[in-house]
Amino acid sequence: MINVGIVGATGYAGEELIDILLRHPDARIKNISAKIDLPRPIAKLFPKFSGRINLVCAEPDIKEIAATCDLVFLALPHTVSMEIVPKILAAGKKVIDLSADYRIKDVKVYEKFYQVKHGDKANIAKSVYGLPEVYRNKIKGARLIANPGCYPTVSTLALAPLVALNLIDTDSIIIDAKSGVTGAGRKLAEGFLFSEANGDFKAYKVNAHQHSPEINQELTALAGKKVEVTFVPHLLPVNRGILATIYANKAPNSLPVRQAGKLPTPNLISLYKKFYKKEPFVRVREEGDYPRLKDVVGTNFCDIAVKDEGDKVIIVAAIDNLLKGASGQAVQNMNIMYNLPEYAGLL
Amino acid sequence: MINVGIVGATGYAGEELIDILLRHPDARIKNISAKIDLPRPIAKLFPKFSGRINLVCAEPDIKEIAATCDLVFLALPHTVSMEIVPKILAAGKKVIDLSADYRIKDVKVYEKFYQVKHGDKANIAKSVYGLPEVYRNKIKGARLIANPGCYPTVSTLALAPLVALNLIDTDSIIIDAKSGVTGAGRKLAEGFLFSEANGDFKAYKVNAHQHSPEINQELTALAGKKVEVTFVPHLLPVNRGILATIYANKAPNSLPVRQAGKLPTPNLISLYKKFYKKEPFVRVREEGDYPRLKDVVGTNFCDIAVKDEGDKVIIVAAIDNLLKGASGQAVQNMNIMYNLPEYAGLL
Amino acid sequence: MINVGIVGATGYAGEELIDILLRHPDARIKNISAKIDLPRPIAKLFPKFSGRINLVCAEPDIKEIAATCDLVFLALPHTVSMEIVPKILAAGKKVIDLSADYRIKDVKVYEKFYQVKHGDKANIAKSVYGLPEVYRNKIKGARLIANPGCYPTVSTLALAPLVALNLIDTDSIIIDAKSGVTGAGRKLAEGFLFSEANGDFKAYKVNAHQHSPEINQELTALAGKKVEVTFVPHLLPVNRGILATIYANKAPNSLPVRQAGKLPTPNLISLYKKFYKKEPFVRVREEGDYPRLKDVVGTNFCDIAVKDEGDKVIIVAAIDNLLKGASGQAVQNMNIMYNLPEYAGLL
Amino acid sequence: MINVGIVGATGYAGEELIDILLRHPDARIKNISAKIDLPRPIAKLFPKFSGRINLVCAEPDIKEIAATCDLVFLALPHTVSMEIVPKILAAGKKVIDLSADYRIKDVKVYEKFYQVKHGDKANIAKSVYGLPEVYRNKIKGARLIANPGCYPTVSTLALAPLVALNLIDTDSIIIDAKSGVTGAGRKLAEGFLFSEANGDFKAYKVNAHQHSPEINQELTALAGKKVEVTFVPHLLPVNRGILATIYANKAPNSLPVRQAGKLPTPNLISLYKKFYKKEPFVRVREEGDYPRLKDVVGTNFCDIAVKDEGDKVIIVAAIDNLLKGASGQAVQNMNIMYNLPEYAGLL
Repeated sequence: MINVGIVGATGYAGEELIDILLRHPDARIKNISAKIDLPRPIAKLFPKFSGRINLVCAEPDIKEIAATCDLVFLALPHTVSMEIVPKILAAGKKVIDLSADYRIKDVKVYEKFYQVKHGDKANIAKSVYGLPEVYRNKIKGARLIANPGCYPTVSTLALAPLVALNLIDTDSIIIDAKSGVTGAGRKLAEGFLFSEANGDFKAYKVNAHQHSPEINQELTALAGKKVEVTFVPHLLPVNRGILATIYANKAPNSLPVRQAGKLPTPNLISLYKKFYKKEPFVRVREEGDYPRLKDVVGTNFCDIAVKDEGDKVIIVAAIDNLLKGASGQAVQNMNIMYNLPEYAGLL
Repeated sequence: MINVGIVGATGYAGEELIDILLRHPDARIKNISAKIDLPRPIAKLFPKFSGRINLVCAEPDIKEIAATCDLVFLALPHTVSMEIVPKILAAGKKVIDLSADYRIKDVKVYEKFYQVKHGDKANIAKSVYGLPEVYRNKIKGARLIANPGCYPTVSTLALAPLVALNLIDTDSIIIDAKSGVTGAGRKLAEGFLFSEANGDFKAYKVNAHQHSPEINQELTALAGKKVEVTFVPHLLPVNRGILATIYANKAPNSLPVRQAGKLPTPNLISLYKKFYKKEPFVRVREEGDYPRLKDVVGTNFCDIAVKDEGDKVIIVAAIDNLLKGASGQAVQNMNIMYNLPEYAGLL
Repeated sequence: MINVGIVGATGYAGEELIDILLRHPDARIKNISAKIDLPRPIAKLFPKFSGRINLVCAEPDIKEIAATCDLVFLALPHTVSMEIVPKILAAGKKVIDLSADYRIKDVKVYEKFYQVKHGDKANIAKSVYGLPEVYRNKIKGARLIANPGCYPTVSTLALAPLVALNLIDTDSIIIDAKSGVTGAGRKLAEGFLFSEANGDFKAYKVNAHQHSPEINQELTALAGKKVEVTFVPHLLPVNRGILATIYANKAPNSLPVRQAGKLPTPNLISLYKKFYKKEPFVRVREEGDYPRLKDVVGTNFCDIAVKDEGDKVIIVAAIDNLLKGASGQAVQNMNIMYNLPEYAGLL
Repeated sequence: MINVGIVGATGYAGEELIDILLRHPDARIKNISAKIDLPRPIAKLFPKFSGRINLVCAEPDIKEIAATCDLVFLALPHTVSMEIVPKILAAGKKVIDLSADYRIKDVKVYEKFYQVKHGDKANIAKSVYGLPEVYRNKIKGARLIANPGCYPTVSTLALAPLVALNLIDTDSIIIDAKSGVTGAGRKLAEGFLFSEANGDFKAYKVNAHQHSPEINQELTALAGKKVEVTFVPHLLPVNRGILATIYANKAPNSLPVRQAGKLPTPNLISLYKKFYKKEPFVRVREEGDYPRLKDVVGTNFCDIAVKDEGDKVIIVAAIDNLLKGASGQAVQNMNIMYNLPEYAGLL
């Protein structure tokens, strides 16, 4: 039984962590904390948990967390995590950090996109990027997991086979992504009010989103050469889910393309299925069958469809931004770290 | 051509007033103001008005408003109106106030429910409650209109025939009302975030809403005796519209009930149609035909269905909370004050 | 391990049953069937189940169902169940029927409200109404469960303490209920199209819904005297959840009311808590704390708030119509029949 | 005063035509028809029109239509229009056809994409494609208008400046479009049910939509060379509105690009503003200001933002699919045909 703590329990990712971990057969929530005026039972803050959990949510107390927990999930805003992570690591406990603070290996890039100074540079290099499909072995031994962003998770999984196998022109990648409103957290801003977002749809941070460098970092690592994508996120009037429609030109001189003359949809699908054949949470769709948000919302799956369009490839991929895009993936990482079945608590 | 000003243009009611008045054949918007950090073109604040209006929205300047406008609409929060109204009246201009500040004739009741001191008691008595179906003649000569609340509008119109004709037991009235989220204004509160309100539904201020005394005041005036309703509002996950389902026991000794032996649905409908036969914005539905929000959203109509249930009567009524429940009714009042066709700008 | 079959797997209740039973520690889905043109893998019909279940959904084959299953869930339209139930019972298997076919004990009432002849009258008397909070002991030994309707579940649970203890005037009960669209099933009717229901809200079957006799039957049983409620259902623009706001007059001569002089909110709450103290899926809310749909959607809980209003009582209660109002309650009944923890698979 | 008829009044486009034309100062609806079992007052079919129009909707009677109307709007499904158009033209009346039947000049392409034989080939050549921004002069004298599709309207307006001025590589155009559900009409299909579409989002007809050839035809005409776009439509959980995010590579050898060295965002915006400077219904946004659906829903505007991204251009454009994408544009065409102010009835 793993004793876990959740710091930042009042946000959407924290709420989701509680929900998953209450059902997890091998984990036990021992400490719940958040930025909060007065301590309150978590079941009062979220009446849906009433009758299921008796813990009180208070300001985080690192000593108490360290005394009761083996592993701590941090579901905190960017820049807040970096103040707490070193303390928990120093106490000999493991951390899965859902913020962006340890994801970007190049601290200058982090500081540019998040517009703050990084206060814990030493631990960046020690952290492992928690995308199991790419870094499973490193995750097993990690003490600090930088849990991936939602857009980077779906984008990297959608593109990994083509990029890793050098099948597309990496300068041509366009990611047109659409996310539900929980992606913004419980932020009190006019644009996230019901009367504003309902019935609406818009692009935002057009090719200027802070997830761009994270996507570029991961695709660059897979490609073995510098990749810069065009990335346009949009705000969908749904609570949960991200669907990304991705376009890329085939690499004309890549070996498989040359050999095959072309790369038709069935071959693309086979290639994706082979690439992901051991993955419990990636599902490759059959020809003509595209994922809807509904297929993945409430699950930890990433569903991917791929289609040949002559000299282009179109990929449609979907995840639940709060599960595979945040808390579900965090628990998947915990399962890997503790040698549990990877799907424990996640089906 | 009436020259009008709008104070509080950045809220939903203000936005709606601009939309209506831009199409109004006999009114011209001359001044737009709101609580705002820096003056901005209103078409920048609301890009949907781009190409249709060139005015700049700035903090209200009473002198300038008085110099350019004949009539001023105040779409301000409660308690803010009472500071501005006396100044505009003193300048000899007319006011239609969409706040609650002049609706409640008994200042103690106002002060109890809105939990503030009233700073302009003198003008309360001079104001006219702007429900045309009840006070049309007074509205014609009014200089200050207290534009009714959304719940009181639909509730009073739904009940007026039965209450005025003494056909129901006024102690038994239950108003179960459901409102869209714009009813709360552009308020930044967690409960109004998309991710909270979408997929949700709840009762709030259960029999404790500040519109209760307004409903009671108007039904008391119609009944000629003290009426206190049971009023439970609910928050609907839609942008606009209120639908109220109302229950009351028949008054067993009322003359029509005694004469008729009973009061079947067709008679109820006839009675409502007769009561509202000259009203341009009240539509009484046929038997078995109940209003949906869609029938009234985007219109200034109040649709009403009434049904006999033995010793009870059930009434279902619907309005658009931003039109008949706020800005549409305000313009209807302006039309009456200026002897225009009552539907001018409203169809 | 209980071997279960699901007949009618393609509707919302059937889909939900699959979801619950795939996670249930003591049940195993052995057979899935539905009215369907050609047999198809259930994971093709519902891609969200892909990778989790390999069964093929075909037309129901009673022999095969009987050969592989101990218990069969019927998630069929009204009138279809009654053709299949006798065959499964004859094969010695247990049935939990989610249709209305065995809920109404008075077959004349059933035939009037559902406008069909009942083809299996013999089994009506043998069936047990599957509301665990009222009939737990009978459910333990039942071979045929008539799983309650969604509106009757929330209405009966909300009113049971007051009705059973004779605290309210049962002639005065008004149930103003609001349900999400899945309550209508996957029915292809214009009113259930997204573009019609989104942004809309309406009352329907005003005091004429087929769940009225079911509510009346259960409240009559609890009261020990004939009860007829006023019941007005409404269609909410949400996928899941029912919230009912219920009004009743206190019974002026009931013993507790007389003794107490009155029955204030804290006493009402105590009384509800006592009534439901052993129930795993009923949560009574504290004073001033009302349930939202969000508190119960995705759970098997029924949340209830109760408020004193002088001579009236107001009750607000909420459930997930597909869980406590259908499939969750069906599994709760299975758990009781098989002496499993009542919450197995349901938390 | 133009006497108009509406055939196909019960669909969303027909309903919208009624709404616009009832407010139009120079048009009068004389005949309303649709495929309908029994004649019914249109105000019974759409209660929101109650009190505003007294016409009865019946099956179309060409003689009567011809006898009472100068101009007929056909809001019919594809393939139904082609049966009626020749009859109305033969009666000497004008037609604005909102279906696809006369949009595609190459009848083979039409027959391939709509999978029917075209029954009125003679009139295809005589029809004018009703996109005022491109064909205003031809529209003035037209007797048959092929009113553009919703996706082609927004796509063509978004790309016209760049394509007409030869500034982009026309082989590289990617149109990632997202439409509200009314785009599908009042079609009874499971995917359009509220419980399916709400909370969902998906791509459909991936690069295989019947609007592709229409977009290609219009861009080819503007480019003066064959254009084939990559077009992926998506279904948004909103009632109304289309937002398209469009990506294209700059044409490296085009004159302006060579002259300028590059083509930065301000230049792109200037170029768009110049191109559309006389257009009443195209609004070009300032730098960094992107259209939301809310800016255009309920209006006849097309809002366009354009952004330089080095060797790529990103364009975001939005319209209301039922107004500029259907009925609003149809009335704009009528206004042009009758020398009325182009915005009559549309503001």
